[in-house]
Amino acid sequence: MALQQIYRTSLSLLTDLYQLTMAYGYWKNGMAEREAVFHLYFRKNPFGGGYTIAAGLEHAIQYLQELRFTADDIAYLASLKGSEGKPLFKQGFLDYLQQMEFTCDVDAIPEGTVVFPSEPLVRVKGPLLQAQLIETPLLTIVNFETLIATKAARIKEAAKGDTVIEFGMRRAQGIDGSLSAARAAYIGGADATSNLLAGQLYNIPVKGTHAHSWIQSFDSEEEAFEAYGTAFPQDSVFLVDTYDTLEGVKKAIKVAQKLAPKGFIFGGIRLDSGDLTYLSQQARKLLDAAGFTDTSIVASNDLDEHLITHLKQEGAKINIWGVGTKMITAYDQPALGGVYKLAAIKNDAWEYKIKLSEQLVKTSNPGILQVRRFYNEQRYLADMIYNELEPLPPQPQLVDPLDATRRKSLEPTAKYKDLLVPIFKKGQLKYKLPDLPSIKAHTLQEVSNLHESIRRYLNPHSYPAGLESGLHQFKMDLILKLREAEK
Amino acid sequence: MALQQIYRTSLSLLTDLYQLTMAYGYWKNGMAEREAVFHLYFRKNPFGGGYTIAAGLEHAIQYLQELRFTADDIAYLASLKGSEGKPLFKQGFLDYLQQMEFTCDVDAIPEGTVVFPSEPLVRVKGPLLQAQLIETPLLTIVNFETLIATKAARIKEAAKGDTVIEFGMRRAQGIDGSLSAARAAYIGGADATSNLLAGQLYNIPVKGTHAHSWIQSFDSEEEAFEAYGTAFPQDSVFLVDTYDTLEGVKKAIKVAQKLAPKGFIFGGIRLDSGDLTYLSQQARKLLDAAGFTDTSIVASNDLDEHLITHLKQEGAKINIWGVGTKMITAYDQPALGGVYKLAAIKNDAWEYKIKLSEQLVKTSNPGILQVRRFYNEQRYLADMIYNELEPLPPQPQLVDPLDATRRKSLEPTAKYKDLLVPIFKKGQLKYKLPDLPSIKAHTLQEVSNLHESIRRYLNPHSYPAGLESGLHQFKMDLILKLREAEK
Repeated sequence: MALQQIYRTSLSLLTDLYQLTMAYGYWKNGMAEREAVFHLYFRKNPFGGGYTIAAGLEHAIQYLQELRFTADDIAYLASLKGSEGKPLFKQGFLDYLQQMEFTCDVDAIPEGTVVFPSEPLVRVKGPLLQAQLIETPLLTIVNFETLIATKAARIKEAAKGDTVIEFGMRRAQGIDGSLSAARAAYIGGADATSNLLAGQLYNIPVKGTHAHSWIQSFDSEEEAFEAYGTAFPQDSVFLVDTYDTLEGVKKAIKVAQKLAPKGFIFGGIRLDSGDLTYLSQQARKLLDAAGFTDTSIVASNDLDEHLITHLKQEGAKINIWGVGTKMITAYDQPALGGVYKLAAIKNDAWEYKIKLSEQLVKTSNPGILQVRRFYNEQRYLADMIYNELEPLPPQPQLVDPLDATRRKSLEPTAKYKDLLVPIFKKGQLKYKLPDLPSIKAHTLQEVSNLHESIRRYLNPHSYPAGLESGLHQFKMDLILKLREAEK
Repeated sequence: MALQQIYRTSLSLLTDLYQLTMAYGYWKNGMAEREAVFHLYFRKNPFGGGYTIAAGLEHAIQYLQELRFTADDIAYLASLKGSEGKPLFKQGFLDYLQQMEFTCDVDAIPEGTVVFPSEPLVRVKGPLLQAQLIETPLLTIVNFETLIATKAARIKEAAKGDTVIEFGMRRAQGIDGSLSAARAAYIGGADATSNLLAGQLYNIPVKGTHAHSWIQSFDSEEEAFEAYGTAFPQDSVFLVDTYDTLEGVKKAIKVAQKLAPKGFIFGGIRLDSGDLTYLSQQARKLLDAAGFTDTSIVASNDLDEHLITHLKQEGAKINIWGVGTKMITAYDQPALGGVYKLAAIKNDAWEYKIKLSEQLVKTSNPGILQVRRFYNEQRYLADMIYNELEPLPPQPQLVDPLDATRRKSLEPTAKYKDLLVPIFKKGQLKYKLPDLPSIKAHTLQEVSNLHESIRRYLNPHSYPAGLESGLHQFKMDLILKLREAEK
C-alpha cells in the first residue's frame, strides 16, 4: 500500500532546508538542469555483521512518484525569511518549483537483496536540482528500512527456523517507525507482526493474544485463562507470568484440561520475565507431563539475536520468539549511516566528482556506478563496483575501498549479474513492484547464497566487495590531483 | 498541527492485535463497559540521567479525538481468520466496535514537565475495553517523544547556551520518526530544525545552508562559495571540509572579503569531519585574523551531550552545534521502556490491581494515582505518588519504589501542586493545548527548577520521587496476599 495511503500531506517538503537553498542557488546560477549523478550507499554493515539487506525501495518509489510542490508547500517556502527579514527565496524560483516535474533516471538494487559497503543501493541521474532535492527523504526511507530488514534477518538466523514475531510497536520511534519497520522486519525474516495497521496496510500476518491486564481484570488467573480460552478455543496463548510463572503454567494446564472436551486446542504459553531458560525448561516438563507436547512456548523480554542464541545454547525450550524493542528500533545500532554523494556532473562531457573529507572512509567514489555480482552454483563469490561508462578489462580485479593492498582477481568463468536495475526513466516508472511475499522469499534466497562465515553475526568473514581496479586507480589519481590543487 | 493532517488513514487499527482479542474477550464476557484505571509510566530515566521531559501528549490527544472504527477498519478485522480458518471475531463484536465512541476520562502531565520513574504520565479511567485498546498507540507516541525531548534537553544543557540545530532527518527512524522527533527535540531544547516539513507542520524555525555536493558541482571551492554567498548574502554558512578543511576556511575568508563590498555578511563556516577541536581553533584564528570575529563556527559529526562537553573542555571554538543521528534516534538508548498497566477495576467498589512479575522492578502500582510535587522558592524538592481516593496523612512520607528502606519525610511547610491535569472528561476534550513555544519555555523553566546535581548527565543525584507511605504499605500487603493466593 502506498505511502500516500498513509500520509495525507504532500511530502515534497519532507527534506532538509539546505536542499532548497542549494536548489535556489542552482536555479539562480543557471545550473538547475545540468545533468548529475548521485549514489546512495553506506560505509559499514550494521551491527558488526557481514552483510546488509536492502529495503525501502517501494516507499522511495512512492515518494518520487508523487513529488510535486503544492500551492501550500510553495506558500510555506514563500513565508521563510532570511536573517534580515527579507524572503529567503525569490518568486521566480518558487514558480520554477511549482511547475517542476520529476524527470530523473533512477536505478536501484531490489529490496531483499544482500548488499555491502560502498555499493550504490540507489543511483539517481538527472537534473542537478531535482537529484539533489530528493537526497534527504531517500536516505530517511532507505537507511531505516534497510537497517531493520538486516536486524530481522540476523534475528531470524539466530532463531534457526523457529517462528519470530515482531511486536515492538509500543517502543517504535513514532507511528511510521512502527509501520515501515514492521514491513522491513517481515522482509528480513519476521514471520508475523502484532501491529494491526501494518497488517492491514502491507498484508502481513498478524499475531497476538493477551496482556497481563487481561489476567488482572479477573478475580483469579484461572478464571482469566478460562474466559480467554473460551473466546478463542483454537487460538489461545496464555501469558503465565502475571503473578508467579510456574504456578501460572500449572493453572494454564488445568484450564486447558477443563476446556479440552469442548474442542479447545492449547496453542501455547508465553513467558515475559525472569530466567527464560529455567522457566521454559520447567514449563516444558509440566506441559509434556500433562500430554501437551504440541503446546508452544513463546518467549519475549528484550530479545535479540545474541540473547536468542544464548538461550538456545543454554537449552531453553522456547520455540516462538516474540521480539520487540531490540528489532523495531535496531537497538544496538539504531541508525544506518547511509549517505548520498555527487559522483558525476555533465558539462560538455561527464566530469567525475569526489568528496575528500578529513577521513578516508568518508571519501566518495566517482563515476556512474553499477555493481556486478559474481557467483557460481553454490554461492555468491564477490561484488565489483565499476563505472558503467568505462570499458572493463578482460580479467577484472577488485580493490578493497578501505585497504588498497587487499585485491582479488575474479575467476574468468564465474557467472555474473548487475544488481542495479532501472526504476524510473525520465521520471516514468519502469519497474514492476514485487509483492511483499516475493521480497521476503528473495531475502531468504539471498542470505542462503552467502557462505556461512559471512552470515555469522559475531566477527563474520568479510565478503569481497570492492572497486574495479581501473575505477580504483582513477579515484586515486583524482584524489592526488585535488590535493595538489588545494595547495 | 494535527496528526490527521499528516496521516490520511484512520488510526484506529494502530494498535496490537492483542488489544482487539482482549477487547473481544471483554465484550464476550460482558466486561467491556466495566470501569478500569490504567497508568502509563516508565521505570528508569533514560540515558543514565536524573530526569525525564514528558512529551507526546498533543499527538496522543489528537489520536484519541479521532478514535473510531471506519468501515474499512471493520472489514479488515472481519477478514482476520483464526488458525482453523474461521473468522477470529464475531459480527456482534464488530458491530459494537463500529458504534463505539471514546468516553474515557484522561488525566496527564503536560508536555515539557520534568518527570521521574513510576510517575503516571497519563492516567486513563473508563470502560475496560476502550482503556485497554489505546494502550499501544499511547505508548508509541509518549515513549518516543518523551525520549527525544529528554535527549534534546541533555544536549542543550551540554551546549551551555550555544545554539543547537536538529538535523537528523536522514538518519531518523522513518518519516514520522523525523517529524515527531523534530517537534520533541524542539520542546526539549533544540533551537531549530533542518526538517522543512516539521517546520511547516509545527512552526519550528528551520535552518540549513549547503552540502558537499554544492562545492563539488562547481569547478573550484572558491567559485562554489562565491555563488552561494551571492545567492544568500545575509545567510551563508560555508561548509569547508569538502577537500581540505583549513584550506577551505582560507578560501571562505577570501570569498567573504571579495563579497563584503556588496553587503555580504559572513555568517559562519561549518566543520563536518576530522579533529573538531584543532580545526575549530585554527579556523577561529584565521577568521579573527581576517577581522571576522562575529563569524560563527558550526560543527557537526556524530555529536551528542558527551562529545559536546568533551569538545568544550578541550577548548574547541565552536558556537553552533548541528546534532543529527545521536539526537533524532536517541542513539545510546533508542527506546524508553514506558508501560501501561491496569491499576484498578470497579465491580461494586474499586478493586486495586497489581502485576507481580518475576522481577520487582516490573511490579506495577495499584490505585488511582496522582503525583504531588513539593517545592520551595528555589527548586523542586520531591514528588509523591499517591492514591487520589485515599485520605493522606497530615505529614506524608515518601518510600522509594525500588528500595523501601529509603524514605523521606516532607516538610509540612513546602508548597505543592498536583501534576496530572484533566485532559478528557467522558471523552470530551477539556484541555487547551498550549502552543509549541510555550511548551518549550515550560521545559526550560522546569529543568531550571532542578538542583544542578540532578541535571548532571553523568551519575546524577537521584531526585526524591516515591510512593506515599500508605500507598507503599497497601502495595506490599497486596503483593503478600497475591503470593499467598498463588501457593
